[in-house]
Amino acid sequence: MKRTITFLPDKISISADKDDTLLTAAAKAGVYIPASCGGEGVCCKCKVQVQGEVSTDKANLKQEDWDKGFRLACRSTAVSDVEVTVPELTTRGGKALKHRPKTTRTASAKALDSLIGKWSSNPPVRKVCLELSPPSMEDNMADMQRVLRALSHILPEHESELTYDFPDLLKHLPRTLRDGDWKVTLLLLQDDPLRIIDIEAGDTTAKLYGLAVDIGTTTCTGLLINLLTGEVLAESSSYNDQISLGEDVISRIIYAGRANGLKTLQGKVVHTINTIIEDICRQRIISPSDIAYIAAAGNTVMSHLLLGIDPKYLREAPYVPSVSQFPLVKAAGLGIHVHYSTRLFLYPCIASYVGGDIVSGVHACQMAKSDKVSLFIDIGTNGEIVVGGKDWMACAACSAGPAFEGGGIQFGMRASAGAIEKFQIHPETFEPMIVTVGQSKPAGICGSGLIAIIAELLENRVIDQQGKFQHHLDTSRIREGASGWEYVLVWAKSTLIGEDIVLTEVDIDNLMRAKGAMYAGYQTLLESVGLSFADLDQVILAGNFGAYLDLEQAICIGMLPDISREHFYYLGNASLLGCQISLTDMGRFQELEETRQLITNMELCENPQFMQHYMAALFLPHTDMQLFPSVQQKLSAA
Amino acid sequence: MKRTITFLPDKISISADKDDTLLTAAAKAGVYIPASCGGEGVCCKCKVQVQGEVSTDKANLKQEDWDKGFRLACRSTAVSDVEVTVPELTTRGGKALKHRPKTTRTASAKALDSLIGKWSSNPPVRKVCLELSPPSMEDNMADMQRVLRALSHILPEHESELTYDFPDLLKHLPRTLRDGDWKVTLLLLQDDPLRIIDIEAGDTTAKLYGLAVDIGTTTCTGLLINLLTGEVLAESSSYNDQISLGEDVISRIIYAGRANGLKTLQGKVVHTINTIIEDICRQRIISPSDIAYIAAAGNTVMSHLLLGIDPKYLREAPYVPSVSQFPLVKAAGLGIHVHYSTRLFLYPCIASYVGGDIVSGVHACQMAKSDKVSLFIDIGTNGEIVVGGKDWMACAACSAGPAFEGGGIQFGMRASAGAIEKFQIHPETFEPMIVTVGQSKPAGICGSGLIAIIAELLENRVIDQQGKFQHHLDTSRIREGASGWEYVLVWAKSTLIGEDIVLTEVDIDNLMRAKGAMYAGYQTLLESVGLSFADLDQVILAGNFGAYLDLEQAICIGMLPDISREHFYYLGNASLLGCQISLTDMGRFQELEETRQLITNMELCENPQFMQHYMAALFLPHTDMQLFPSVQQKLSAA
Repeated sequence: MKRTITFLPDKISISADKDDTLLTAAAKAGVYIPASCGGEGVCCKCKVQVQGEVSTDKANLKQEDWDKGFRLACRSTAVSDVEVTVPELTTRGGKALKHRPKTTRTASAKALDSLIGKWSSNPPVRKVCLELSPPSMEDNMADMQRVLRALSHILPEHESELTYDFPDLLKHLPRTLRDGDWKVTLLLLQDDPLRIIDIEAGDTTAKLYGLAVDIGTTTCTGLLINLLTGEVLAESSSYNDQISLGEDVISRIIYAGRANGLKTLQGKVVHTINTIIEDICRQRIISPSDIAYIAAAGNTVMSHLLLGIDPKYLREAPYVPSVSQFPLVKAAGLGIHVHYSTRLFLYPCIASYVGGDIVSGVHACQMAKSDKVSLFIDIGTNGEIVVGGKDWMACAACSAGPAFEGGGIQFGMRASAGAIEKFQIHPETFEPMIVTVGQSKPAGICGSGLIAIIAELLENRVIDQQGKFQHHLDTSRIREGASGWEYVLVWAKSTLIGEDIVLTEVDIDNLMRAKGAMYAGYQTLLESVGLSFADLDQVILAGNFGAYLDLEQAICIGMLPDISREHFYYLGNASLLGCQISLTDMGRFQELEETRQLITNMELCENPQFMQHYMAALFLPHTDMQLFPSVQQKLSAA
Repeated sequence: MKRTITFLPDKISISADKDDTLLTAAAKAGVYIPASCGGEGVCCKCKVQVQGEVSTDKANLKQEDWDKGFRLACRSTAVSDVEVTVPELTTRGGKALKHRPKTTRTASAKALDSLIGKWSSNPPVRKVCLELSPPSMEDNMADMQRVLRALSHILPEHESELTYDFPDLLKHLPRTLRDGDWKVTLLLLQDDPLRIIDIEAGDTTAKLYGLAVDIGTTTCTGLLINLLTGEVLAESSSYNDQISLGEDVISRIIYAGRANGLKTLQGKVVHTINTIIEDICRQRIISPSDIAYIAAAGNTVMSHLLLGIDPKYLREAPYVPSVSQFPLVKAAGLGIHVHYSTRLFLYPCIASYVGGDIVSGVHACQMAKSDKVSLFIDIGTNGEIVVGGKDWMACAACSAGPAFEGGGIQFGMRASAGAIEKFQIHPETFEPMIVTVGQSKPAGICGSGLIAIIAELLENRVIDQQGKFQHHLDTSRIREGASGWEYVLVWAKSTLIGEDIVLTEVDIDNLMRAKGAMYAGYQTLLESVGLSFADLDQVILAGNFGAYLDLEQAICIGMLPDISREHFYYLGNASLLGCQISLTDMGRFQELEETRQLITNMELCENPQFMQHYMAALFLPHTDMQLFPSVQQKLSAA
């Protein structure tokens, strides 16, 4: 249930989730409250007064403040609608602080429905219960042929083309027929031809499960789905065990070249999937062997590694995958702990750096069925872009580097506990308001935090458009460090790591290169099809990173195009969503081939146009400010 | 090259094979020469005089006889056409011995051609050499998709339906493409759809081998075939290693029910096939991984065991196989040492006791394409019978018992060295003429020998039509032994085993039951389709046992119907022949399904008609002598 939280004195209201602390809600609403401990209740800077019911604790707050009715914003969650009074903050000159309104995400669940559409329960596997006439001396045809005969009576349209898993199915068919007293349930794979892949004694038609898996370079996520209803029964995530052998796809390709490296990598990702299956099955007390079908998607390297196929040529020009479309494969054959008949579908890839995760996402959001021109973006170390609609689509990958995932950033880290993810700054004192993941002691900066910090520093003119600090500003937080000028986000005493957490100009440079590559990618791809940003009807942000991105901040630094905010959609884990849809609805699944065929790949890495756009984008937000009118306005106002 | 051997004084000529000894030739021609040591040159009874050139040795022959120009028939082979004078044999009454003319096999190689027909070189796998354009930045589609694109250019009719072994083929495809500098050879399985199953660097189209295997309960035989020409390159046989776990199919079904029994049996037959492959490949210095396809046939039990499928229900009424038609399977998946892409085709079975070996034989001899009414017979412990032609076919199995393989016969043995296989008797002295397999010291009696002995004893009235010895005859060879009356075939001193080799009345009873079951089977099956022996145009004898059968002797004891000898064909290992044809000619292979569908199975074991016929057949040749006019005449003349 949502609560309305109204911040006074500016009367800014926000509809907050029930788990949002008042500090988080303030950050979402763009209301500045000083906070430097990340939300752990230690620094006690975020004290507010509350009208209405909150759940709270005292933490480090002085008794004196508590008695005055102050509460820590970071330790309080609203139980009813509440009004929160933020103590009057004055500028150095004694004037009251002006509130800067912010636009946040516009895509609602309703809007997403229009993008994703509906899907019905028509899975790629189905069950049929058969009651067979037992054999007699007059009718002693073979068990298997008896089953085929009975099935073809029920499904006459498939009579001449029924097939089955041979010889696996036969291993227990005779026993099962007799155990079930000639009443059995067949598991059918809706392939061409229709294929019997398993047989169970009695009527088990009420039980049919599937697994959707997004195989990420960093994280793998699985959904257990009731294939009879389409209902999601459980979810589980796990770091990809391959991380121990290399952080990114390139290092894994290199590892695969070692003796036994490919096999080891395959074993690691399979182990990760098995961990997810184990967890998900424990949650719902079902047996892994009851998972009848798996739909999975991963980037091209992950797809190769899962299948045990050498990814070597993916990173050597001209960047050729070994295979880009994957027939169904038996999951158990890869080492996945499910029934030996369970098939695994893996989304096709387009090119070496535009993989099945992107195809899955594009498939999920139905770009290929839309009259609108959409720009699909998955931001990451490898950023992928797809543009187009029902008549054509073009895709490209741009190597953004690891900055979005905290790589190459002095205090960069993954978005785990202690990572600074929300940030505001007092426009005159330059004191920060910091919210961390899990509201625990700050430990570093994650990707979305990095964007928030740089956008905020830019908007408040703490850095200039080249990403350089204004070191004349009157604050001890700006100082010259070992690698040049830097801003102290958190003083050592408040951090988990016992040292000052800073943002350096080198960090800003790295972020500019990353966002510049993405932006240049959109430009180049759009130009290649004769379009500009003005032609876009929709911008679809996919991926976990995209889901945590603050739209205004991302536009402010020049990472996303400065167009109407109404055009943006947050799709979240689109790859997993595509798997879920394919797993549940054959009709939707069958549209995939058409979607894939529509997409043409473009290689940016040696494209001179791209290089030109890239150079022009190494600025905040861009050297061509006409491309960013709203940011221009904001910066001029500041 | 054949030699003409003319036996004097009776001027009986025979065209002998170059390896036939004069004794063997005499036995084939029905000329009696006394001989009791089996042909080992020990007893020296078979001395003859020769006009013409022979290769010979003296062995035990006395110098005196040698000097007189005598030679041992068992140690001499004709180098040119020769005349052989058999010393005048007189009856006890002083009259010269009358020669009894014999009809032997009538089916010639030419006649077989008319039965089997021709087949062309159009194997189920083929090779295609591709020269691919190497990838570039402008054309960097995946390796596999590049191969598919190139192949569909060459084979446009298959474009939309090409498939391939996934993910196996990908394991070495990228390396192979680059090793071959983008010139590669694809191995295609002519399935629906066309399937790429292997890829080799360079042009290897000149090399394409297949293996035909007959999987017998006792013996397995393989042929290595050049699939480009159809030429048979090598042959190899090996006892089925399963023998150590049970002599016959029933004991193997029982063994399969033990813990791990099925797996052990499967391992044994796979090991046998691997032994054959090893031998055959050594003969022609090829690698087992160059065998691209295997066509195999076996009875229903052997088929189940090879595939590792429980045969339990085959021997329990109502005698149901687990499966009777077998999709293609990867041979390596069964443990066969060939390339992992190699497919194994296994002939379909009809019923529990009419297996793929029979279907293969019926397929080979094209019964299903003939206007003629044929009776196809495979004689063995389990005798199989198929009757019909192009419009219908009916089959049945009859349990003849092990007598034909030496089982239940006091001195019975397999047809290996020392087994008495040819036999004649002096009509008045009752002294035997014995030829053994390998012409070595007699060790026992094999199936064909048993038939020869009983036929000869019957024709010479040493036994009566009930199979009882005429113990009033004046010969010490007929005597009362431990299990009743018996005839001494070889005295202990001349045998390998150091004891008298005898034939007992119990042995004769066993043989009568075996042949009676076969004969009753033909009768019952023919009657069930409204036919009689007179309606038969062809009788096709399949199987190794059939190949060694003397037609006149088999008819004499009532094992084969007494119809025109011109109707009989000896097909030999028809099961292996079918495999060879299927392996070589897709056109012929595709007729198989129609053949199989034509055949209706009939269960004889509980059929009252069959039991009646069986009782009537427990006589030599039969209680109804009108069914055996030629034997009637012969016996009346004797």
